[in-house]
Amino acid sequence: MRRHLLSVDDLSREDIERILRRAESFAEVSGREIKKVPTLRGRTVINLFYEASTRTSSSFELAAKRLSADLVSVKSSGSAVEKGESLKDTVQTLSAYDPAAIVIRSPQAGAAALVARWTRASVINAGDGKHEHPTQALLDLYTLKRRAGSLEGLRVWIVGDVLHSRVARSNILAFTRMGCGVTVCGPPTLIPRGIESLGCEVRYTLDELGKADAVYALRMQRERMTGSFVPSLREYAAQYQIDCRRLGPSQLLMHPGPVNRGVELAAEVIDSPQALITEQVESGVVVRMAVLYELLAGGGAPSPVRAPETEAPQPA
Amino acid sequence: MRRHLLSVDDLSREDIERILRRAESFAEVSGREIKKVPTLRGRTVINLFYEASTRTSSSFELAAKRLSADLVSVKSSGSAVEKGESLKDTVQTLSAYDPAAIVIRSPQAGAAALVARWTRASVINAGDGKHEHPTQALLDLYTLKRRAGSLEGLRVWIVGDVLHSRVARSNILAFTRMGCGVTVCGPPTLIPRGIESLGCEVRYTLDELGKADAVYALRMQRERMTGSFVPSLREYAAQYQIDCRRLGPSQLLMHPGPVNRGVELAAEVIDSPQALITEQVESGVVVRMAVLYELLAGGGAPSPVRAPETEAPQPA
Amino acid sequence: MRRHLLSVDDLSREDIERILRRAESFAEVSGREIKKVPTLRGRTVINLFYEASTRTSSSFELAAKRLSADLVSVKSSGSAVEKGESLKDTVQTLSAYDPAAIVIRSPQAGAAALVARWTRASVINAGDGKHEHPTQALLDLYTLKRRAGSLEGLRVWIVGDVLHSRVARSNILAFTRMGCGVTVCGPPTLIPRGIESLGCEVRYTLDELGKADAVYALRMQRERMTGSFVPSLREYAAQYQIDCRRLGPSQLLMHPGPVNRGVELAAEVIDSPQALITEQVESGVVVRMAVLYELLAGGGAPSPVRAPETEAPQPA
Repeated sequence: MRRHLLSVDDLSREDIERILRRAESFAEVSGREIKKVPTLRGRTVINLFYEASTRTSSSFELAAKRLSADLVSVKSSGSAVEKGESLKDTVQTLSAYDPAAIVIRSPQAGAAALVARWTRASVINAGDGKHEHPTQALLDLYTLKRRAGSLEGLRVWIVGDVLHSRVARSNILAFTRMGCGVTVCGPPTLIPRGIESLGCEVRYTLDELGKADAVYALRMQRERMTGSFVPSLREYAAQYQIDCRRLGPSQLLMHPGPVNRGVELAAEVIDSPQALITEQVESGVVVRMAVLYELLAGGGAPSPVRAPETEAPQPA
Repeated sequence: MRRHLLSVDDLSREDIERILRRAESFAEVSGREIKKVPTLRGRTVINLFYEASTRTSSSFELAAKRLSADLVSVKSSGSAVEKGESLKDTVQTLSAYDPAAIVIRSPQAGAAALVARWTRASVINAGDGKHEHPTQALLDLYTLKRRAGSLEGLRVWIVGDVLHSRVARSNILAFTRMGCGVTVCGPPTLIPRGIESLGCEVRYTLDELGKADAVYALRMQRERMTGSFVPSLREYAAQYQIDCRRLGPSQLLMHPGPVNRGVELAAEVIDSPQALITEQVESGVVVRMAVLYELLAGGGAPSPVRAPETEAPQPA
Repeated sequence: MRRHLLSVDDLSREDIERILRRAESFAEVSGREIKKVPTLRGRTVINLFYEASTRTSSSFELAAKRLSADLVSVKSSGSAVEKGESLKDTVQTLSAYDPAAIVIRSPQAGAAALVARWTRASVINAGDGKHEHPTQALLDLYTLKRRAGSLEGLRVWIVGDVLHSRVARSNILAFTRMGCGVTVCGPPTLIPRGIESLGCEVRYTLDELGKADAVYALRMQRERMTGSFVPSLREYAAQYQIDCRRLGPSQLLMHPGPVNRGVELAAEVIDSPQALITEQVESGVVVRMAVLYELLAGGGAPSPVRAPETEAPQPA
């Protein structure tokens, strides 16, 4: 495996399978009362977040801590103008601490690749603009595989604002690599031209949604709902909302969260047994533990989780 | 004891006594150079704070760390409109990490009880609007008991803005449960009607303050001092400020902090030996350690603190 | 050594030499994969930062964590008016947790000395207004000594806005104490009158810069570039910018960061092999580990780093 995880394209099918197996072994750790292994003890992981993100940042934070790493969190709003410059300076400063990994979230596409040029640390892309969000794709693969048993040949529909979605990009790449058939669906204004080149099909209506084994609804950014992309919220929901009429009883439902209730998803499907949304969040920690493990301690090593961290027994 | 600590009403007198004893054993730990026990090693505590609070959040943070838990801090200003919705989503997301406890501070009364519905974690109310702040009441009991020897039969006056105070509510419940006689005192506009039903007496002047063994002054919120509640700051201080003329030499003085010097308290009494204000802050960490212990590791188990965390001896 | 580190004046030459030796032993730890020693296990270090500072705060955070201390970070913007009052209250509150050290960064000169009056903890000045920044000076000494072999007799020029610089003040004191000859240079408006009393010489042009063994460029605060101090940015750069024409091939270059590229330094010198700027950042962590060690665990004790933290061996 490469030193960085910048894009799903950095991962071979074998890499992905190894990460998913590793995540499964960490799921066993997370089921214990003491959810911790000493794998990365004394190593430093830096969370460098230029966008607010409770979900992703706390998930990486817990992943690092459950591997016993020291986590340093650097959050910066960063002024728009100086961003390019200050990102480099910040990365060079942080790199001087010799961290094992830098986890970077940025509103700029390509930011993670830039960071990787400026540091000896392993760089993990935790979302860079509209470009990619590879650990999201990995946790989605992990979640779907656990429920469906196998990914091979599964038909996955990705529905919504594909144009602005880094999750869509990473997931098209990831699902196709694992042998799924991927269809993207949404209003023509929100489907990028030429997206078929990534190996997916395109539909502009949900008429054939019944063919899907799993439906992956994207978050509709509220700021995109007005203006030229969609005529109105109601219009969008009328045509593309996943509800219990459209979702068949044997189809699985996924969403990267947070959900806009009543927009891309109807309330009744969110909490249905078909929905994997909570499992996706749960998978976040173990999949990120697996990614950190593979980048920082991996290389065909045996499972790190045979024994829990043992220390002087707790007296009470 | 229940799984959550949402209100002082969740606690029997026996529960409170057990927590106070446990806190005492942790006070012994806190007196050591190595202020740490391995009790909650590998377990996750989430601080979810929707209101700024250096004091309470850092106190819970230290309590968790001194029990060797992994602490994740989530701070959110949260927009007023979406609050109800986003609280649920946030809690469900955080719960997917299988935390042992969620500590919640919110400007909304009842928020902690809502959180408890949405998670399998133990929920600790760290202040919910004007409703309750039970760990504050517990640390006040602990502090007063240490100084006074026993709580039984002590006469406590709670003075100030009772109407807007979650501390007042929790403390009336806690002091009466432990056998104290409680009197609340303040301007009629700041004493809620029917407060007597909680088991306290009501006075509108400090004329009989001499009867108190302990005087608990509430923080006067500056934003309440103007407008309809009190005619003016000076007027309020003239009638209700605790100063050295009003406070007898054998009476104890408490305050939840931070103090408005020269408003509810005169400067001369704040640093007097009668004031327990610093002890209250000190007690915060050990009482919160005790609460975390009782909720997460307790149940009649023997004291967790007989032996300190032992590890490979430090070479230097 | 004293209990606090408020100013370079608190340190004898022997103190400084001991800190530099200790930092060297920590540099050996930082070169390991497990960058951690158990020296401060179970002790609490509080980072109290009233000014934003990624660099200094993350450096102290890592230093504390690599010594196994529990770090609590308190960041406050703090309103200008109440600052004096609230600093005292905050410090008294935090002191009630019995921390081993409080690291304070404040825009007010003298803030660290005030904090030291209000707490039993060791106080480390991480920058107080225009006054001092002693750990910066120590890491600069450490960096220069590593490269130059010895500090004795080195000629150091400090160039730029000396008037507003706490770094300049601390470094003049530190370099002279260690036997360097210090010259400060800048526009007359940015050199404080009487600065010679600290033991340095003054020049207003770079004409004799060739005499320097090391050139220490100060950060030019953008907000000072307009107005009465310098006629214009271009004017300043024309006269005082360090570029490859002015910097001789055997002269060393230092800067406290972050650099204003093209203002105090020309791009070509920043990444040259003569520049120690990255080494300065690297030194930050080990020098701050050394300072924490000397204040909290020191006193002639043998080196803390003979053996790494040993625990149950990691299975994988």
